[in-house]
Amino acid sequence: MSGSRLTLSDLNALPVPAFVAALGEVFEHSAWVAEAAAAGRPYPTVTALHDAMMAAVRAAPPGRLAAFIGGHPELGSRVRRSDLTADSQAEQGGLGLDRLSAEEVERFSRLNAAYRERFGIPFIICVRRHTRDSILRQFEQRLAHDTDAERSAALAEIGLITRLRLVALVDGPGVPATTGRLSTHVLDTVTGRPASGVRITLHEIGATARAQLLETVTNADGRTDAPLIAGEPLRIGTYELTFHMGDYFGEAGFIDVVPLRFSIAEPEGHYHVPLLVTSWSYTTYRGS
Amino acid sequence: MSGSRLTLSDLNALPVPAFVAALGEVFEHSAWVAEAAAAGRPYPTVTALHDAMMAAVRAAPPGRLAAFIGGHPELGSRVRRSDLTADSQAEQGGLGLDRLSAEEVERFSRLNAAYRERFGIPFIICVRRHTRDSILRQFEQRLAHDTDAERSAALAEIGLITRLRLVALVDGPGVPATTGRLSTHVLDTVTGRPASGVRITLHEIGATARAQLLETVTNADGRTDAPLIAGEPLRIGTYELTFHMGDYFGEAGFIDVVPLRFSIAEPEGHYHVPLLVTSWSYTTYRGS
Amino acid sequence: MSGSRLTLSDLNALPVPAFVAALGEVFEHSAWVAEAAAAGRPYPTVTALHDAMMAAVRAAPPGRLAAFIGGHPELGSRVRRSDLTADSQAEQGGLGLDRLSAEEVERFSRLNAAYRERFGIPFIICVRRHTRDSILRQFEQRLAHDTDAERSAALAEIGLITRLRLVALVDGPGVPATTGRLSTHVLDTVTGRPASGVRITLHEIGATARAQLLETVTNADGRTDAPLIAGEPLRIGTYELTFHMGDYFGEAGFIDVVPLRFSIAEPEGHYHVPLLVTSWSYTTYRGS
Amino acid sequence: MSGSRLTLSDLNALPVPAFVAALGEVFEHSAWVAEAAAAGRPYPTVTALHDAMMAAVRAAPPGRLAAFIGGHPELGSRVRRSDLTADSQAEQGGLGLDRLSAEEVERFSRLNAAYRERFGIPFIICVRRHTRDSILRQFEQRLAHDTDAERSAALAEIGLITRLRLVALVDGPGVPATTGRLSTHVLDTVTGRPASGVRITLHEIGATARAQLLETVTNADGRTDAPLIAGEPLRIGTYELTFHMGDYFGEAGFIDVVPLRFSIAEPEGHYHVPLLVTSWSYTTYRGS
Repeated sequence: MSGSRLTLSDLNALPVPAFVAALGEVFEHSAWVAEAAAAGRPYPTVTALHDAMMAAVRAAPPGRLAAFIGGHPELGSRVRRSDLTADSQAEQGGLGLDRLSAEEVERFSRLNAAYRERFGIPFIICVRRHTRDSILRQFEQRLAHDTDAERSAALAEIGLITRLRLVALVDGPGVPATTGRLSTHVLDTVTGRPASGVRITLHEIGATARAQLLETVTNADGRTDAPLIAGEPLRIGTYELTFHMGDYFGEAGFIDVVPLRFSIAEPEGHYHVPLLVTSWSYTTYRGS
Repeated sequence: MSGSRLTLSDLNALPVPAFVAALGEVFEHSAWVAEAAAAGRPYPTVTALHDAMMAAVRAAPPGRLAAFIGGHPELGSRVRRSDLTADSQAEQGGLGLDRLSAEEVERFSRLNAAYRERFGIPFIICVRRHTRDSILRQFEQRLAHDTDAERSAALAEIGLITRLRLVALVDGPGVPATTGRLSTHVLDTVTGRPASGVRITLHEIGATARAQLLETVTNADGRTDAPLIAGEPLRIGTYELTFHMGDYFGEAGFIDVVPLRFSIAEPEGHYHVPLLVTSWSYTTYRGS
Repeated sequence: MSGSRLTLSDLNALPVPAFVAALGEVFEHSAWVAEAAAAGRPYPTVTALHDAMMAAVRAAPPGRLAAFIGGHPELGSRVRRSDLTADSQAEQGGLGLDRLSAEEVERFSRLNAAYRERFGIPFIICVRRHTRDSILRQFEQRLAHDTDAERSAALAEIGLITRLRLVALVDGPGVPATTGRLSTHVLDTVTGRPASGVRITLHEIGATARAQLLETVTNADGRTDAPLIAGEPLRIGTYELTFHMGDYFGEAGFIDVVPLRFSIAEPEGHYHVPLLVTSWSYTTYRGS
Repeated sequence: MSGSRLTLSDLNALPVPAFVAALGEVFEHSAWVAEAAAAGRPYPTVTALHDAMMAAVRAAPPGRLAAFIGGHPELGSRVRRSDLTADSQAEQGGLGLDRLSAEEVERFSRLNAAYRERFGIPFIICVRRHTRDSILRQFEQRLAHDTDAERSAALAEIGLITRLRLVALVDGPGVPATTGRLSTHVLDTVTGRPASGVRITLHEIGATARAQLLETVTNADGRTDAPLIAGEPLRIGTYELTFHMGDYFGEAGFIDVVPLRFSIAEPEGHYHVPLLVTSWSYTTYRGS
């Protein structure tokens, strides 16, 4: 990935116009943010650069700030009823905003309208850190804010959105953590050995639907060759790992299919979800 | 229940015609079974009485035995598409044969026909010990039998059916165990105390559908006031207990809703399914 | 036990002198307590009777109360170096005050002297609810009390001592709980069955020594035929259950001898200490 | 370590006399083993080199082989009563052969004599892979061998001893695994976080004594900064890890000090022994 990215030292050395050209779209339609940040160079870390850009946003005159915030697209504009087949939905994973029912589209429209009426701005949220359900929960919680609290919340989300964009563009020291990790480990406590060859599926569990995110198999170490999720923020929401232990143990015991349901609250966290299992018992926990 | 049942000592003392009148319908349309058993009285236990009736069946001349077995109703005759609402289905519990889809009705008809063609008798199974899925599995396994093995299987099922009928009619010493029990227990291992007030649901999990059997709440001892299932055979099948732990702990931790999925294989067994739980971990096992 | 005990209704009906004769020694050398309580009859419960006796103690004129408290024997008077063999110690169980080392006898003497100098009374504690270690801890904590707090503590202990004596004498409704229970349960989670035939020992663990309290074997239900401790208060202290699982599993796995160490804090509580175990893993918890 | 070791490619290129000088003492007093192996060079892996040396031993004429085996020192010669203080014993760790009681010295002498009388050779065992107890067990098992089985056992031990010596001398590709690893991990399942600052001790548990091997504290990840044991073979035997959880939780709960006792059977294995723990429950297992 770093091959195609600029380095922080490149950025520190660029003429201002080139710097602005490189980073101008990190803040939506607002090259003035990059311009303001150019003056503070050199930055020792990517985090320091991002902090400076956010400081410029916060320090902007009210009219400019309002225009900047108001210029964000409505969340509703990306919401439409999916025409995808069930299969291609599974490939794309998750219960995203692209696969709402007519009823849900309607609900989002109502929330968007209520939000704009209350605060006079579009609802801004870093969609890549959320599932459909957690966006809805956020929508409802933030509708209850007063104006100041909600301005802070919107700016915090802008920070999260632009941090992801900046990290996609720039490599260098002090890159902030923007990705999470979900992993598992299956231990057969009958033999005291890792359980290999266990089929596992991962689903997102929404309030009204569930969607399969992936299917995989444990390796000789009882783990999966790659983490279940990595290289991107984990989406806040509820998940279910399903372990096909009856097939593994080769017998129809008390335990056959083990569903482990858990919640992810920290998109940049590491969630390790082990399973210690026999045909008659199991233990799970958030590991580290 | 014993109030309306005959006692074994009553039965031992009855004149033969009254004995036959009392037990004649235990074996479908075959008062001769009761007649044969009348001669062996007195019986020390209800189990001994039932064993004698089954011995009479096994000793019957081939023609009489064939007529007895052939006289059983076809399983298919009780199968029809349900007109029940979803609510009343939940009340009646389970994915019974009274709520098959058109496709499933068709599948049962095909299996019935194939079975009768292969063995010349109706498919006999003690329905009260099974879920829809386990009946289908039995159907397919038994279609692969040779004639002798299947005759034994059919007689074994007749033994199970009639044992249930006999126990419903007769009280006394040595009543065979015909009922199972499913129970649970929730322990909060943060406080080391039983978890009370935990909402629990129990579902039957079929291959193509799931049906809620009950909803309940744990008491001060972390148990339910009554066993989840008792007083009848447990139906062989797959079940899921769901524990609403997030509501109990009053926080959105890693663990919110805990689904425990398990298989019941012994209709007359005691299945105790405890949950040891924190907001971040849990353990379950088949207890005793 | 109730056979040799008076009943509460007997006591309620006795002439005052007989009542006093029956209960006069419950409060050491202080028949006046029983006399005071006689007037309040009839008592609906044994607890109410005991409460009335304690109220009489608390209401006594200062001189009488001081004489009553001061009349208790010094704890030190029961402390002496044991001449018991190791075997008979094990039979009698525990690290009692009858088996102190010379050093420990010395320590108790110093504490007794310091206590009497500070408060002017003997140190009173309900010995049957304590191990040697917890008595020492209590001694040190109570030496730090001010006079009022310590008088309350001494009276509370007198309440516990006399409650045990009263329950030994009187049967009837509303007997207060004065006994605890310690039990265990071993589940083999390889087979999903209770583990029977597991050899178990129970030790008291003191700061400087350990003493075996009992050795037993699990029955077919994975439990012991009798509770490990019952029918008396549990002694506050640290214990270790040892399970000989290698012998049970018949193999030298990762797990051979399992020591479970735990603390008992409530003498009248029920401590259930289950073990869920394979050759490679185990779980324990305070059950209920 | 590799800095002071020869590399395999060095060895492959050395003149024969230098090769023999380098490896002549790997097989006790038997430079002929290295001479024989010199002819088979170059070796692709250190394991292949060791295999060739062992093949030379096995192919030696009976007289030479007997002299080689007979030339090993008696195990007894290293056994003597320790004059070490308890402290320095703890530093040196374990219940080694240097700290036997007079009784144990006597037992070893008897076993040595019985072994030599039966097989005509000294008892050879790779001491670095054993505790005192497992040596005694091996001694008794091997005394029951017939001559052929015991010759194989002695040669297998020579293979283990010389493999350790060779690996200490030679670096290069294909070095055989001669070291094991013991590690732990403490997870606080109340908070779902690693438990840091937990004091841990490790003891070797012998049949008649126990010896502390180390004391350490968990770091922010709930692990120890270094593995508990690494860089050498694990000694076959019984161990106990003790976790001071009461200090960690800051309360006197049901669980205070947690002893985990386990057996190590594979000196070159990785034994990971996690603890999932609250004040009222815990789980352990052999992890990976």
